[in-house]
Amino acid sequence: MLIVMKADATEGQVKDVVRVIEGLGYKAHPMPGASRTAIGITGNQTAVDASHFENLAGVAEAVRVSKPYKLVTLDLRAEKTIVRVGDAEIGGEELAIIAGPCAVESRNQAFAVAEAVRRSGARFFRGGAFKPRTSPYAFQGLGEEGLKILAEIRDAYGLKIVTEALDESGVDLVERYGDVIQIGARSMQNFTLLRRVGKSRLPVLLKRGLSATLDEWLLAAEYIMSEGNYQVVLCERGIRTFAQHTRNTLDLAAIPAVRRISHLPVLVDPSHGTGKNYMVTPLARAGVAVGADGLIVEVHDQPDQALSDGAQALTLEQYEQLVSEVRAIHEVIAPAAVT
Amino acid sequence: MLIVMKADATEGQVKDVVRVIEGLGYKAHPMPGASRTAIGITGNQTAVDASHFENLAGVAEAVRVSKPYKLVTLDLRAEKTIVRVGDAEIGGEELAIIAGPCAVESRNQAFAVAEAVRRSGARFFRGGAFKPRTSPYAFQGLGEEGLKILAEIRDAYGLKIVTEALDESGVDLVERYGDVIQIGARSMQNFTLLRRVGKSRLPVLLKRGLSATLDEWLLAAEYIMSEGNYQVVLCERGIRTFAQHTRNTLDLAAIPAVRRISHLPVLVDPSHGTGKNYMVTPLARAGVAVGADGLIVEVHDQPDQALSDGAQALTLEQYEQLVSEVRAIHEVIAPAAVT
Amino acid sequence: MLIVMKADATEGQVKDVVRVIEGLGYKAHPMPGASRTAIGITGNQTAVDASHFENLAGVAEAVRVSKPYKLVTLDLRAEKTIVRVGDAEIGGEELAIIAGPCAVESRNQAFAVAEAVRRSGARFFRGGAFKPRTSPYAFQGLGEEGLKILAEIRDAYGLKIVTEALDESGVDLVERYGDVIQIGARSMQNFTLLRRVGKSRLPVLLKRGLSATLDEWLLAAEYIMSEGNYQVVLCERGIRTFAQHTRNTLDLAAIPAVRRISHLPVLVDPSHGTGKNYMVTPLARAGVAVGADGLIVEVHDQPDQALSDGAQALTLEQYEQLVSEVRAIHEVIAPAAVT
Amino acid sequence: MLIVMKADATEGQVKDVVRVIEGLGYKAHPMPGASRTAIGITGNQTAVDASHFENLAGVAEAVRVSKPYKLVTLDLRAEKTIVRVGDAEIGGEELAIIAGPCAVESRNQAFAVAEAVRRSGARFFRGGAFKPRTSPYAFQGLGEEGLKILAEIRDAYGLKIVTEALDESGVDLVERYGDVIQIGARSMQNFTLLRRVGKSRLPVLLKRGLSATLDEWLLAAEYIMSEGNYQVVLCERGIRTFAQHTRNTLDLAAIPAVRRISHLPVLVDPSHGTGKNYMVTPLARAGVAVGADGLIVEVHDQPDQALSDGAQALTLEQYEQLVSEVRAIHEVIAPAAVT
Repeated sequence: MLIVMKADATEGQVKDVVRVIEGLGYKAHPMPGASRTAIGITGNQTAVDASHFENLAGVAEAVRVSKPYKLVTLDLRAEKTIVRVGDAEIGGEELAIIAGPCAVESRNQAFAVAEAVRRSGARFFRGGAFKPRTSPYAFQGLGEEGLKILAEIRDAYGLKIVTEALDESGVDLVERYGDVIQIGARSMQNFTLLRRVGKSRLPVLLKRGLSATLDEWLLAAEYIMSEGNYQVVLCERGIRTFAQHTRNTLDLAAIPAVRRISHLPVLVDPSHGTGKNYMVTPLARAGVAVGADGLIVEVHDQPDQALSDGAQALTLEQYEQLVSEVRAIHEVIAPAAVT
Repeated sequence: MLIVMKADATEGQVKDVVRVIEGLGYKAHPMPGASRTAIGITGNQTAVDASHFENLAGVAEAVRVSKPYKLVTLDLRAEKTIVRVGDAEIGGEELAIIAGPCAVESRNQAFAVAEAVRRSGARFFRGGAFKPRTSPYAFQGLGEEGLKILAEIRDAYGLKIVTEALDESGVDLVERYGDVIQIGARSMQNFTLLRRVGKSRLPVLLKRGLSATLDEWLLAAEYIMSEGNYQVVLCERGIRTFAQHTRNTLDLAAIPAVRRISHLPVLVDPSHGTGKNYMVTPLARAGVAVGADGLIVEVHDQPDQALSDGAQALTLEQYEQLVSEVRAIHEVIAPAAVT
Repeated sequence: MLIVMKADATEGQVKDVVRVIEGLGYKAHPMPGASRTAIGITGNQTAVDASHFENLAGVAEAVRVSKPYKLVTLDLRAEKTIVRVGDAEIGGEELAIIAGPCAVESRNQAFAVAEAVRRSGARFFRGGAFKPRTSPYAFQGLGEEGLKILAEIRDAYGLKIVTEALDESGVDLVERYGDVIQIGARSMQNFTLLRRVGKSRLPVLLKRGLSATLDEWLLAAEYIMSEGNYQVVLCERGIRTFAQHTRNTLDLAAIPAVRRISHLPVLVDPSHGTGKNYMVTPLARAGVAVGADGLIVEVHDQPDQALSDGAQALTLEQYEQLVSEVRAIHEVIAPAAVT
Repeated sequence: MLIVMKADATEGQVKDVVRVIEGLGYKAHPMPGASRTAIGITGNQTAVDASHFENLAGVAEAVRVSKPYKLVTLDLRAEKTIVRVGDAEIGGEELAIIAGPCAVESRNQAFAVAEAVRRSGARFFRGGAFKPRTSPYAFQGLGEEGLKILAEIRDAYGLKIVTEALDESGVDLVERYGDVIQIGARSMQNFTLLRRVGKSRLPVLLKRGLSATLDEWLLAAEYIMSEGNYQVVLCERGIRTFAQHTRNTLDLAAIPAVRRISHLPVLVDPSHGTGKNYMVTPLARAGVAVGADGLIVEVHDQPDQALSDGAQALTLEQYEQLVSEVRAIHEVIAPAAVT
């Protein structure tokens, strides 16, 4: 932390700040400048709380310098994490593709989509059994019934099941039927839920919250890892901005930003990231080109009949086309992305 | 819903859209214009799902017209809701003031603050026992121990206790010890939690999420009310924007916006809404001037020793000054605010 | 500036950074910490450019510490600036009220509004002759014709004329007919224009840009002042955020934020700040309560016939009511706001 | 436009609205629904102004339906515009690459970079002679001196010169020395400037403003085209959001969004779009993968000595690597992007 004094701060005020710093057991480094003095703080093991200083006399600002997370960082682990799910993996050389409907609506629908997902060579199937819906009057998912259908799909097609849990009892169920627990954007700071999945033996797919900064997102991963579960996959799915031509603004710069700090794999969700069918494939291409470890995509056999998010779901044909396009890009950039 | 056709849409495409509308059991109203045709939809009981139409041939856009909520609206209940908590109330003629520390840290701290809150004439005491913290390494609250201290404060000072629950088991505890259940900004779309408090006998203080639109916020209230609990108080606490001179941007226009749609009372939180001690009082004044039903404010007997959010906590003296300023404004604008 | 080294930076890399700092003529202050080294920089007269350091080996981050502006700051001038316009002033004890139509549309319209503005006791009349319109097909203002009407209003009512200039030739005209040159939100970073008004003898009303940070806004004022014109009035008029219930989000925390840094007076524009008639008065009250030096408000004798921005214009009756409400608040908070 | 009446609007109020619509010469289409009536408006040649209706009794909302622009749309011109600059083009089959330093700093610097740009096969050279700088104390560009150096580069290397004009006199100069006039993000709504370049014989590169919606951006292009200059190239360069890990958030979904509405070519600027050297190449790849017609990239022979924006400039080696990567992606997706 760096304490910046006001231009007219007195020597006595500088000394008072130094005293507070030392009182907290840290070391103070006063640096008198042409117009004002700044005081560096070292010797802290964890992040220093700015509020000790902000309201002291003569203080203009307290600037946080060190980052508040540890386990997620490259400082702790220099090589990239590869999350293994049975014989499939996320973060390795192969592009990970997770595809399926927004919500499991029926056995027929889920199997029709799974058939196409399997054919495309993807290794993961997504489908919601518990849907976080903005309105209490909207379709909320089939619940355990939906999870059973997903388990059947794993048996029939060998696809690994990625599905969301909204609360602790949902985690219990996903642990019984699924392979990867998805934490949705709205739950990114549901700390009770993060701690619960931190104790799970299943990998966790952690979506970025709609208004989450990079630090908040990484700290959410840190919550999970601090409970002992190191199998965490990050997923950029769009942030909320003033732009109205998309449902969310897909922040693809988050991918290199995560890479520079963290060893965790990171995916892109072009479906929620745009909310519009015609944008999904272009943004999926962009997500792979920017260097993501994979994609999570919504596919439906009859998008115009979908009970949720139909506007963004790809048809089976569109999905197959997407896979062939992103695979071609992945091949071309593979050496670059690794760097 | 209004379906806007593309300029070059054929008559056949218009007919197809009409057919889909009628197939859903609605009534279609085609309106041919100079450059393009629009088709109105009526006869729907609940919100029409845009995704049925957005990808049909010839469709440019599906514009949602009716609002997806009911119970929160003035259409349903024309007079303003007054939430009663024992002999105190929120939404009535008196300005409701909820004050106290961010987190209960000790019996001494809580009683020192409560003493000042009582003296100021406020009727509600706030204090967190369960703190949602961005970092897993930050102070997480005293838990049930903190709730017991809060219950003692109620007994000692007659203050009503407002405290946050983060999950279902937290609601059980708050029901035992508290008077109003606070749902924090990060939990605004924790639908499991919303349903649980919807079944509570206690009133609910529902904070707006950091990136929540007005509709999403009102729908979160609708979730609670749809379970039978009509005692909901809304609270604006700042949204996330590009601006960096505050922790959040307090959106005071949300107060008249809520008033125009809903009968629910609405408060302002100038502490989280700014994150800076020196801004709390000016924004508290503004919140009352804009017509809020009350304030929720963080006060600490020793802000520079606070275990959380000390930078925004008022000292006891600052708090007393705030109360006298906002009371004066409330008196002046009372007739205006009622309108 | 503070250079934060990576955790694994070598001693040699730290030395290289020190060498670069000293090469630029500054003084380096290395501070070895538990996990990483930070290096403070002092001895710079102007802001240090981060780009000298960000790409050096071993550097994690370059954190800017000192602010890039001078003339606007309280460091330079401790007492508040009062901008005098003839016998009227902005920034003094009296609340400054600037009112009038968005655009001057006709002599009749302008006089009808001016009559009411005069009657309310306001000292300033606003009205656009050159309108920056998002669409090339929208009404663009009466031009010099409009300025002549404004000059007549000054003669008839003694009101000071505040009107916008969009370009250098517009400034020439405003200097001939008006009293205060308004720089609109869209022009806040039109540096050619800022330099031109910096050479004017007229005071300048500088609106905050839709996406301007506090620093950018103050630097725009600095541009004007650096050319010699110290008569600058700031005006908060709403920023662009995700919120859709208003045209812009009025950021009232900007008022105390400006106060803490700068000696310049600052106004609030609740008309553009909300874009909705029914919100203007509540937000005007809030603007005065937060401590602004005054308001700029749109008033029209027939809002539903207005050629621009009719949705936000107050009727004459609404305007009179607003003035009486904000005056009452100003009286109550006057001592507080001064602090 | 669609007028949505309140649930409790009377029949008389509906009739009044119909009367106002017809009074404006339009046709009204009342659609009584289960809970409220909506009234469609047709017969308008230009956009209907919502403010005629928003404050009428019984009106809940006025929803704009038709778009306010024409010349930019596919409705007007179905085939894509190819902007020709001598023997080079933007919007055709070849990926357009515009590269060069942020600012022309010296003849040596400009020639060193131009040499590498030429070698890479790019056809356009960028370099600022007039720099819009946030601070009045920052380097403002070499002015006409810089333009002369750019003209020499055109002669020496056959590169087309893309350079920014900040005001009308700047356009005069760019017309003398350059090939494409750049309108920067801060000038996107400088309507005087837009009209001036609308009368130029040179093509215009129009950057999206930091907080511009898609409609505002297209309307800025409409301003230029409405003056007769149809050679407009759009450029996405990042928008302002809450995210702080980049200077701006590059909104790549804007590319397919523009494509769906407009025939104009659209580029991506990964340099300003991220502000960080290490992100430029990944985002350049993403920009090409999403289907942009080309890139504009900052390159410097000595980024750490740059007088402006050094932190985001690529070295010559990094630039060469970027070109080879994006060319490979362009080849792979070419058929897809055309669609």
